[in-house]
Amino acid sequence: MRLQVKNLPIGTGDIAIAVLCDKDATRLDLRPADRVLLKFGHKKIVATIDIIGRVNGAPQRDHKKQVICCGEIGLFLEVQYALGVKTGDIIEILSEKKPISISYIKKKLEGKRLEKDELYAIINDITEGNLSEAEITYFVAACYLHELNMTEITHLTYAMVETGEQLKLHQHIIVDKHCIGGVAANRTSMMIVPILAAAGLTVPKTSSRSITSAAGTADTVEVLCPVVFSLADMKRIVHKTGGCLVWGGAMSLAPSDDKIIQVEHPVSLDPTGQLLASIMAKKKSVGATHVLIDIPVGRGAKITDLKDAISLQGKFEELSKRLGMKVAVIITDGSQPVGNGIGPALEARDVLWTLKNSARGSILLKEKSVTMAGILLELTGKVPKGKGYHIALDILESGKAYEKFIEVITAQGGKEIRPDQIPMAKKSYIVTAWKSGKVTHIDNGIMNKIARIAGAPHDQEAGVYLFCHKGTIVRRGDKLFSIHSDAPERLKYAIDIAKKENGFEIG
Amino acid sequence: MRLQVKNLPIGTGDIAIAVLCDKDATRLDLRPADRVLLKFGHKKIVATIDIIGRVNGAPQRDHKKQVICCGEIGLFLEVQYALGVKTGDIIEILSEKKPISISYIKKKLEGKRLEKDELYAIINDITEGNLSEAEITYFVAACYLHELNMTEITHLTYAMVETGEQLKLHQHIIVDKHCIGGVAANRTSMMIVPILAAAGLTVPKTSSRSITSAAGTADTVEVLCPVVFSLADMKRIVHKTGGCLVWGGAMSLAPSDDKIIQVEHPVSLDPTGQLLASIMAKKKSVGATHVLIDIPVGRGAKITDLKDAISLQGKFEELSKRLGMKVAVIITDGSQPVGNGIGPALEARDVLWTLKNSARGSILLKEKSVTMAGILLELTGKVPKGKGYHIALDILESGKAYEKFIEVITAQGGKEIRPDQIPMAKKSYIVTAWKSGKVTHIDNGIMNKIARIAGAPHDQEAGVYLFCHKGTIVRRGDKLFSIHSDAPERLKYAIDIAKKENGFEIG
Repeated sequence: MRLQVKNLPIGTGDIAIAVLCDKDATRLDLRPADRVLLKFGHKKIVATIDIIGRVNGAPQRDHKKQVICCGEIGLFLEVQYALGVKTGDIIEILSEKKPISISYIKKKLEGKRLEKDELYAIINDITEGNLSEAEITYFVAACYLHELNMTEITHLTYAMVETGEQLKLHQHIIVDKHCIGGVAANRTSMMIVPILAAAGLTVPKTSSRSITSAAGTADTVEVLCPVVFSLADMKRIVHKTGGCLVWGGAMSLAPSDDKIIQVEHPVSLDPTGQLLASIMAKKKSVGATHVLIDIPVGRGAKITDLKDAISLQGKFEELSKRLGMKVAVIITDGSQPVGNGIGPALEARDVLWTLKNSARGSILLKEKSVTMAGILLELTGKVPKGKGYHIALDILESGKAYEKFIEVITAQGGKEIRPDQIPMAKKSYIVTAWKSGKVTHIDNGIMNKIARIAGAPHDQEAGVYLFCHKGTIVRRGDKLFSIHSDAPERLKYAIDIAKKENGFEIG
Repeated sequence: MRLQVKNLPIGTGDIAIAVLCDKDATRLDLRPADRVLLKFGHKKIVATIDIIGRVNGAPQRDHKKQVICCGEIGLFLEVQYALGVKTGDIIEILSEKKPISISYIKKKLEGKRLEKDELYAIINDITEGNLSEAEITYFVAACYLHELNMTEITHLTYAMVETGEQLKLHQHIIVDKHCIGGVAANRTSMMIVPILAAAGLTVPKTSSRSITSAAGTADTVEVLCPVVFSLADMKRIVHKTGGCLVWGGAMSLAPSDDKIIQVEHPVSLDPTGQLLASIMAKKKSVGATHVLIDIPVGRGAKITDLKDAISLQGKFEELSKRLGMKVAVIITDGSQPVGNGIGPALEARDVLWTLKNSARGSILLKEKSVTMAGILLELTGKVPKGKGYHIALDILESGKAYEKFIEVITAQGGKEIRPDQIPMAKKSYIVTAWKSGKVTHIDNGIMNKIARIAGAPHDQEAGVYLFCHKGTIVRRGDKLFSIHSDAPERLKYAIDIAKKENGFEIG
């Protein structure tokens, strides 16, 4: 059948969509989410069908104007560019079978194990945009309900890696780290990358932006230098300095993962198998040989039960073995924020002070970072067992880590800046202790919430600054934390929230 | 935040969608599928967010033209009409919480039982367009994996009924029937409705169009008269004649069901709980008090295993009891097509011949319909036990059923027509027996496929006509069936298929 093109001014950024009127869809025996092959000259594309005004065979609603009429086909931007058509062109439409991977998704829904080829087919179709949102959703739901076993997770990881781009550095040892998340002010990557690179290791670190926290590593690094680079740029930076601190989202490393995360979002699902494959695929994609995984545990963190953390630790170890990677998995205290500042600028300032061995630096951030860097120095065999911590500490305290950090951010297009030169919100409000006693809890979830309401991470200068941590003895009226924001309404709302629930417990 | 409207020439027919550019979405901390409240003067609507060019935080693709720029908001038709805005107007956008029903969907995904209020909330949000495709998909997947129990199915059925329109006929007894489907030429409704209405019963029958078969009851009735009516029209027709044969899709009877079926389609899922609730909700919505359910079983039918049919039978009986409806569930032979013609015109002609007691009528269709009508006559208490079959046969053979049928199709705007006056495709091809023997199998699936390729149901005149049924002794060269289509390519393709695989087995 031949139809007249009507280019629509909309795209999905991903899946190719073509829109038919109800009558033509009926004539072609097509239902929403069915696939068609569209041809224009030598160009062709497989598109997913949307039917205007039809809900499972119900008649067209009484819209004042009919957008797609009989004989017309509405094309989303992705289809327009693929075919190079303009409104009024005539294209051919042919029905196309559903991707075979849908039958594998159904197999998993029925509780059966998936073979290597089947997982590859699913991940490949997700990457290529051949599966609709509903179809990917069924895959995630199936994996949530019928947990993937280690063999399936291994295949899934390889499939995610191989359907994306990969960083090829041709190094014997490549180091990487990952934190499960949920802890505020946990900017260890910005400390560990320069320590390890200064020790002569290669650390091609990609980080994410914040999703639910007040700042991700990428958001914080961005206060000091650009973070959006192509894979070729990243390679150049790592070759030059030994390390990098770039945003992973701009590259096509394990790209299927991003689409899977997108359908997990509506119901906040995160099946363990997908979590493991997602993290390790990103590490494998940069060629990592030695990896440190940080699992913070505690009230207010993502993982609250030590038993769950230990189970996850075992799974990371098993998966890494199967992927031929050396891994160290540490369980850390996730019951309070690590650094003092919470929010991009406040966290960047903390990192600079700590790297410069300033008295204003964060003791907890220094301690955690040096420990983690030490473990990686030993894991790679770079230093003898038992020496890692001290050598990492020496690299930091000698100023070599700071020098390397400036080298990395300069290679990324930034400039050295004094911590107190980083722009901060001018308006702030101080929350004080309502009674005397010992600080027994500082809730990560609530601190992130207050900092986000104040404007972080989109307002880089907004956030929260902690004057104390757990264990501090405070007197009534002592400063607990300050809230920073130049948006008066945001500041007011953040103060209101903090008055109701401020995340501190004093025992 | 205030944004400038850009009206987009597209709608979904259902969910209200607003489109933002990546940058504004980041600023507002919104992700795809998040909800926002849009305000224009006194008008407001909750819309679901789509973000142009963004896949989980990935940057804008290099589209030659940016459709939605910073400060703009693209509105789908549904939003435009709700707010009464035109391009250039300024509207306010506020973030809106996710519907609470999403937490119930997650609860079901975790294998927990849902309470009455929770199922109502889910179905109400589906009906109101408050849940996205991915969210409804999770609901269906959860019900597939953690089967609903009978209490949940009962609540689900009531929720589906009460969130839609209902037919109120104020009759003591209202009769309905339903067939699980999968059998070709199974036009019993067109026989049973006039028999029962002629007996003085009220039969407000709604039917579906074909989804995967060569013709649904609605498609076949449409050969003789219109089938698209409002609920008020339907009521008028039933009051006048005692029965009707209308398309259910045009009315809002249990409308959530249509949306659920739509997300089941991509992976051909049909959880038993949803199947039961879906069928019984449609019956309850027309006020049915006495219902006959037909479960055809056999090779080539939807249900192939007798055990599954018996299990389903028990569930229908239990659910009907809980809904306060009397039900008879029969298991019938689904191993071959019922009538001779397959395709709307061919089936309509069969029905007319059979109602007119012509020698060209279908013996199997007559036998099955009279049996079923007899069961319903007895179930309602209209006739004494043991008398149903004979009384139904008498109504048919006396010509009263035919008279009533003409009365119904006339009330629906049709006219009496002789069976041989129904337009048929002029071109046909006859498939003959390749050997002598007894016909042992005629596959419904394959027959439907051949008829669909020939053009049915969209080409009303296309299809297949069977010259024999199972048990017939044929000699080599005898006619088995003919294929009808006036579209030369379709006819050729259907013949090719039939030469490879014609669905007949001769023993």
